[in-house]
Amino acid sequence: MADDTNGIERYDPFDGGLGFSLATRVGDIVFTSGMVGVDGEMNVSDDPATEFRQVFDNLAGVLEAMGTSFAHVVDMTSFFAGDFDALYPVYEEVRKGVFTGHPPASTSIAVARLLDPRFHVEVKLTAVVPRP
Amino acid sequence: MADDTNGIERYDPFDGGLGFSLATRVGDIVFTSGMVGVDGEMNVSDDPATEFRQVFDNLAGVLEAMGTSFAHVVDMTSFFAGDFDALYPVYEEVRKGVFTGHPPASTSIAVARLLDPRFHVEVKLTAVVPRP
Amino acid sequence: MADDTNGIERYDPFDGGLGFSLATRVGDIVFTSGMVGVDGEMNVSDDPATEFRQVFDNLAGVLEAMGTSFAHVVDMTSFFAGDFDALYPVYEEVRKGVFTGHPPASTSIAVARLLDPRFHVEVKLTAVVPRP
Repeated sequence: MADDTNGIERYDPFDGGLGFSLATRVGDIVFTSGMVGVDGEMNVSDDPATEFRQVFDNLAGVLEAMGTSFAHVVDMTSFFAGDFDALYPVYEEVRKGVFTGHPPASTSIAVARLLDPRFHVEVKLTAVVPRP
Repeated sequence: MADDTNGIERYDPFDGGLGFSLATRVGDIVFTSGMVGVDGEMNVSDDPATEFRQVFDNLAGVLEAMGTSFAHVVDMTSFFAGDFDALYPVYEEVRKGVFTGHPPASTSIAVARLLDPRFHVEVKLTAVVPRP
Repeated sequence: MADDTNGIERYDPFDGGLGFSLATRVGDIVFTSGMVGVDGEMNVSDDPATEFRQVFDNLAGVLEAMGTSFAHVVDMTSFFAGDFDALYPVYEEVRKGVFTGHPPASTSIAVARLLDPRFHVEVKLTAVVPRP
């Protein structure tokens, strides 16, 4: 995680390889990139609930690297691809377990495509870093 | 409206029922969830102009609950579903009446689907709470 | 660029003509509107790489008007229309030249439509204004 001269912190574990940071922080605010449900071997589960849990597992790691957690997420946008009517109830169940007691603002839409046809959702978060 | 221990304020009038808050506030910044044009009986008008006015009526209530108003909106994203060429001019007219003299930054795109096929737009705002 | 009474700065060179500002600033944070690849004569190149460079040229002007630059962008969302598989690699190349050494968080999705069928991407930025 690099601090640059303008008070912006960037989390770029791929060191420029992606062309973007997985998250940035300015002041107390953290912006994550859209996250997808790939595991450590770049696989995506065929089961949407498993895929969605992987998305939030991945986001948990990003938030932790930025010094925050799901309890401090203030806003989220979820971009779906595929059968929205079937996917959304599954997503709601998974999300409920992640944000119980501290729900962020949220926007969920179905888009035309995500970068990989295996992805059914891409989730972008805004969080705040808790003051010690 | 609950204040939690991390300085995040959440507006969740459904008390967890939606799985997300209608808005959150951190510092002076308010994030709304994507809002749609349902009225108090969960109906959606067949007339897009009426639907769009309902969206902004609903958002007015959310902003008021967070201590702010349309004059303090800094950013908006509008997600359209349906005939974008026909809907956008109608939307522009409605929006003009809402933001005259204090236009936010704005992004308008047509997506594949919104959560309910009756919805023609979902609108997400970022606002600032005015200092007294 | 007008300062209003609530500490919100708006960049609206069309003076209300668009119905939105090209950017707003509150505190140190700048929000741009979704920007497209139109040149000064409102033309859009048939060549995606040229179109994408125009998008970033336009955004450079907006950021400069707000007192900031690409080095201080913390988040971006890119909405694509058309053949996502063909467009994204071209976009990555162009973006790499813009953000080398200071990559923002980023989300890229394919939507159903942008406002004009000539547009292949619309890009929205969040930036911070550097302290002197």
